[in-house]
Amino acid sequence: MTTSDLRVGVVGAGAIGADHIKRIASTIAGARVSAVVEPDPVRRGAALESAAGATGYARLEDALDADAVDAVLIATPGQFHLPVLLPALAAGLPILCEKPLTPDPESSWTVLEAEQAAGRKLIQVGFMRRFDPEYAALRQLIAAESAGELLMIHAAHRNANVPDSYAQSMLINDSVVHEFDVVPWLAGSSVTSVEVRYPKRNSLTPDRLREPILVVMELDNGVLVDVEMNVSIQFGYQVTTEAVFEKGVARIGQPSGLQLWQDGAFRIGEHADFTTRFATAYDRQVQAWVDAAKRGTIDGPSAWDGYRVAVACRAGVKALESSGPVDVDLPDVPAFYA
Amino acid sequence: MTTSDLRVGVVGAGAIGADHIKRIASTIAGARVSAVVEPDPVRRGAALESAAGATGYARLEDALDADAVDAVLIATPGQFHLPVLLPALAAGLPILCEKPLTPDPESSWTVLEAEQAAGRKLIQVGFMRRFDPEYAALRQLIAAESAGELLMIHAAHRNANVPDSYAQSMLINDSVVHEFDVVPWLAGSSVTSVEVRYPKRNSLTPDRLREPILVVMELDNGVLVDVEMNVSIQFGYQVTTEAVFEKGVARIGQPSGLQLWQDGAFRIGEHADFTTRFATAYDRQVQAWVDAAKRGTIDGPSAWDGYRVAVACRAGVKALESSGPVDVDLPDVPAFYA
Amino acid sequence: MTTSDLRVGVVGAGAIGADHIKRIASTIAGARVSAVVEPDPVRRGAALESAAGATGYARLEDALDADAVDAVLIATPGQFHLPVLLPALAAGLPILCEKPLTPDPESSWTVLEAEQAAGRKLIQVGFMRRFDPEYAALRQLIAAESAGELLMIHAAHRNANVPDSYAQSMLINDSVVHEFDVVPWLAGSSVTSVEVRYPKRNSLTPDRLREPILVVMELDNGVLVDVEMNVSIQFGYQVTTEAVFEKGVARIGQPSGLQLWQDGAFRIGEHADFTTRFATAYDRQVQAWVDAAKRGTIDGPSAWDGYRVAVACRAGVKALESSGPVDVDLPDVPAFYA
Amino acid sequence: MTTSDLRVGVVGAGAIGADHIKRIASTIAGARVSAVVEPDPVRRGAALESAAGATGYARLEDALDADAVDAVLIATPGQFHLPVLLPALAAGLPILCEKPLTPDPESSWTVLEAEQAAGRKLIQVGFMRRFDPEYAALRQLIAAESAGELLMIHAAHRNANVPDSYAQSMLINDSVVHEFDVVPWLAGSSVTSVEVRYPKRNSLTPDRLREPILVVMELDNGVLVDVEMNVSIQFGYQVTTEAVFEKGVARIGQPSGLQLWQDGAFRIGEHADFTTRFATAYDRQVQAWVDAAKRGTIDGPSAWDGYRVAVACRAGVKALESSGPVDVDLPDVPAFYA
Repeated sequence: MTTSDLRVGVVGAGAIGADHIKRIASTIAGARVSAVVEPDPVRRGAALESAAGATGYARLEDALDADAVDAVLIATPGQFHLPVLLPALAAGLPILCEKPLTPDPESSWTVLEAEQAAGRKLIQVGFMRRFDPEYAALRQLIAAESAGELLMIHAAHRNANVPDSYAQSMLINDSVVHEFDVVPWLAGSSVTSVEVRYPKRNSLTPDRLREPILVVMELDNGVLVDVEMNVSIQFGYQVTTEAVFEKGVARIGQPSGLQLWQDGAFRIGEHADFTTRFATAYDRQVQAWVDAAKRGTIDGPSAWDGYRVAVACRAGVKALESSGPVDVDLPDVPAFYA
Repeated sequence: MTTSDLRVGVVGAGAIGADHIKRIASTIAGARVSAVVEPDPVRRGAALESAAGATGYARLEDALDADAVDAVLIATPGQFHLPVLLPALAAGLPILCEKPLTPDPESSWTVLEAEQAAGRKLIQVGFMRRFDPEYAALRQLIAAESAGELLMIHAAHRNANVPDSYAQSMLINDSVVHEFDVVPWLAGSSVTSVEVRYPKRNSLTPDRLREPILVVMELDNGVLVDVEMNVSIQFGYQVTTEAVFEKGVARIGQPSGLQLWQDGAFRIGEHADFTTRFATAYDRQVQAWVDAAKRGTIDGPSAWDGYRVAVACRAGVKALESSGPVDVDLPDVPAFYA
Repeated sequence: MTTSDLRVGVVGAGAIGADHIKRIASTIAGARVSAVVEPDPVRRGAALESAAGATGYARLEDALDADAVDAVLIATPGQFHLPVLLPALAAGLPILCEKPLTPDPESSWTVLEAEQAAGRKLIQVGFMRRFDPEYAALRQLIAAESAGELLMIHAAHRNANVPDSYAQSMLINDSVVHEFDVVPWLAGSSVTSVEVRYPKRNSLTPDRLREPILVVMELDNGVLVDVEMNVSIQFGYQVTTEAVFEKGVARIGQPSGLQLWQDGAFRIGEHADFTTRFATAYDRQVQAWVDAAKRGTIDGPSAWDGYRVAVACRAGVKALESSGPVDVDLPDVPAFYA
Repeated sequence: MTTSDLRVGVVGAGAIGADHIKRIASTIAGARVSAVVEPDPVRRGAALESAAGATGYARLEDALDADAVDAVLIATPGQFHLPVLLPALAAGLPILCEKPLTPDPESSWTVLEAEQAAGRKLIQVGFMRRFDPEYAALRQLIAAESAGELLMIHAAHRNANVPDSYAQSMLINDSVVHEFDVVPWLAGSSVTSVEVRYPKRNSLTPDRLREPILVVMELDNGVLVDVEMNVSIQFGYQVTTEAVFEKGVARIGQPSGLQLWQDGAFRIGEHADFTTRFATAYDRQVQAWVDAAKRGTIDGPSAWDGYRVAVACRAGVKALESSGPVDVDLPDVPAFYA
């Protein structure tokens, strides 16, 4: 592909879609938003204002018919991914699909089959943590084995609070879902079981939720992982990982930036939400995808990664109501993804 | 009691006993070592050299007969505590007994009965973490509820390595034993169940051991506690606690002291073993005990605390070979200790 | 200007020029390298390989004649800036000029006159620290006065070592030059005097240098600034600033990223050189310039900022060989720049 | 000397004297307060309440006549030190004298002569920073030269505020006085000149004061030292030292202890005043003095150290009203102190 910009069709103009449109316009090299696909005309119109030169469409098929896009970025809610993925795959276009790939293993498997039919990997799934510099440094440390082999991981995922639409199962499907992707990527091994333990309930959590929870995961290589999942912690947004090696311990996600002494304390600001915590990760993810799409490939989590996360999520949701570990049964990885 | 020094008989002149003798001589106000009780004449002689004015005895009973001591500090291995505790109690002397009180719940119960027969609390158990300034600050924060109620605790106890005498059960009886005391003290609630999970084994651990382990404890008030117990981590000695509240998170045991930039990195020295990590705690513990003994009381963990830790340890050892949680069944606390 | 890419001519294809070429190609939205201006054919050829679609020229005038560029990024050594700035200004093109604007106040004044003749601000000077997120946060804190007024600044600029070409005057002209720009930008006030104090000489510094030095600067608003300038510190690259307010103290440039316990110490990696320390700043600087150039303006340090830094540098060089403070005499700011 | 307690006469029962009385009673091994010397009967009576077994005296001579003390701890204001030091020296008693030795070089010289007449070192001066574990670690690092030779020191001494009695000269005589002792002790070299620079004045400082100040000191070995002296910083009490070596940088006095995330920030508590910041230093200082006194010697800063600090303070006070460096002229060290 030449130096000309990749024409990206962004599907879904909600908060995340609008954010991606702005990102492509202002911080991504070699790409531009050529189409905004959104059934809601108000949202579509608003999004088009920040995407100079883009055309609006109600359906992806219309943009494809108009030959308006070189690649597709899917930013709709997860339950609408399948009907967008299939025509995009059929058109042979590179796809960046926000997580989850689809909401369940069966529909994800359908996507795998469609991608294999298309003949090459077209789908990159938006597990953006892999593009965070600290996660990348931790993965490198694990691979180098300079501190010995990895034995355990302690993780925490803490949100100040969650919107009214956040249901109990979303502790797994919307939040721990990230750990289901990034932990195997860090450790080089798949999740084989998931258990959920309930600590004392936070009285500040909405009535419909029982949390925080402690999720205990086993990996195929024996590494044991615990994840504190917490969505009413009030103080800010924090995602941390502590890796225990044979000869050392590493930690990411710690406070950084301007340090201030005032009013009797030393302090460092904490993030308020994921938009600042993972800003660099989002930028790098989209840039990597654009660069890879121009080369006809992907550079990030594949559809297979999306599938195995869907399987783990199903086990995790079951574990919310079980006692003891729930097995995660993965089929053999298809040769196409091996 | 007047300003005259408390005459302490130290029983056991191994490493810990020798350390206490030195401590009393050099950093404790209002006390002096008047007797060293140690059957081994070589050790006894060596210990006496650093305890000017003290007399050596082979058995505690001889020191008691000689009216040589006002109080007893027991620093023998745990299996020898009972035969020292009983005569000291019979003599009505204040006792600081190194942990564990005794190695099992039955013998610990015998001690409780003897103490109750003596008519007042004479025994303080050497769970020194309670005297560490950071543990004390954390307990105060929990009690204040300024960050809301306590929900979870994540703890880690890491040793560089352990001596040849360290057996698998000592992961519980010698190491997690500290958490069995200090976590209830922090959280104001007893341990009700213990589970052990096995991560990947450290290849650097001795053949006889399978560790690290992850210990998951439930407290009566619903707080969930996980403890990484690790005795071959190589890099140093580290004991950390992270408390998760409704509105915040607190952490103790983090690096402190001189900061150095050299050779491409910023660094802060980590402890090599417990002697430096808990130096202040040991000093404060013995001073508190001496001061309390002069007032005819104790100021620290009681024999009842020693008993309930023994019960939790038994459950923990069982959990080493079980899957799922093992219940910790405590009898009602005797009125004497309530 | 539309969504079409800004065609940037990069002048100078040494290390910094090559870095900018790569940056524009891979991380900057809305711009592409259309011309590489470099007299050395080997360097020019190498640079063109990473700038797909760009044309090589030996002189800027040739690129201008070919109407090949919308904007000019000057990355030659400082002594060659003037002969590039003048034709670029004459052509009315937006310019990003690496620091220094020019090597001395007189030639910088010539540039100011040429820019004023051009009728609008075309020049942005490459003092990239202003685009570092931590410097920006510190400036915001100062402006907010939430910790009271700014009273003092303690700064340190430490290099592991310097190349053979680094002469004593470059302690000022190449290194402290950054503080001469960023400190007034932080504090909202100009430098009025500069003094240099000599501590013990580092025996590891090259024979031709006498350093580290302590530079003491006074600002017009009374703020006192000290800068440790150190170019043989061996351990890494570090730039820190500590701001003392009436009611607090703030600090930037502290260690961040992955934390590791290994071999008896807690450690955080330090930067090896400016390319990683200021990577984000360079990216943001060029993006801001590209965005502003498309709007027909600048978004960063102006030519006037470049001029006043040149005046401060002259005083600083004089201070290297004087005792006591050397005055920095600035003319009134021309109305064009006020 | 045997195991019997050192009988200490505390002279002065103001805040610091009362603190020492409590310290000796509760945390110092091998000593007890046998006499409280204080002309004010109310203070004397109050102090005696916390010194069981001690007798009150209006004048030191009375306590000496009564043979009531083995050693003297002087905790009066500095202008009253001389009339207490002389009789104590004449009596041949070990002395711990709070800083300053005396308020001026001439009277300090008189003390040196009296001590030499007494025939052995009896006076230890209360520069307690030498007993702070972090200062000790830094000194060890400097002596080891593992990071190369020491080149510079950046220090900061920050008080939240000062009492009404604090005058401008006390910036030197009461505060920087500590740096005049501890910096030469760290660096192994004497102060040769002192300069004072004035940053912007803190509007929150009392009208009678002009501060903060920046004190620049040169040492005989070429090391350059800057000290920010700040007594109205509001946020807390902080004393930090940063040592610049040939191959590294070390820093002490940084935040430590319980870490808390709450309300959008990570925070660590800062000290409110010197009583907590230097609690360990005070304890260790008095214990070292008691132990040394029993051996007939001192273990800390000598009267000569007190004298040279008095000389440096005189230069510092002159520097408050001078521009440029003021020389510190020390006589040769008497053989007695060499």
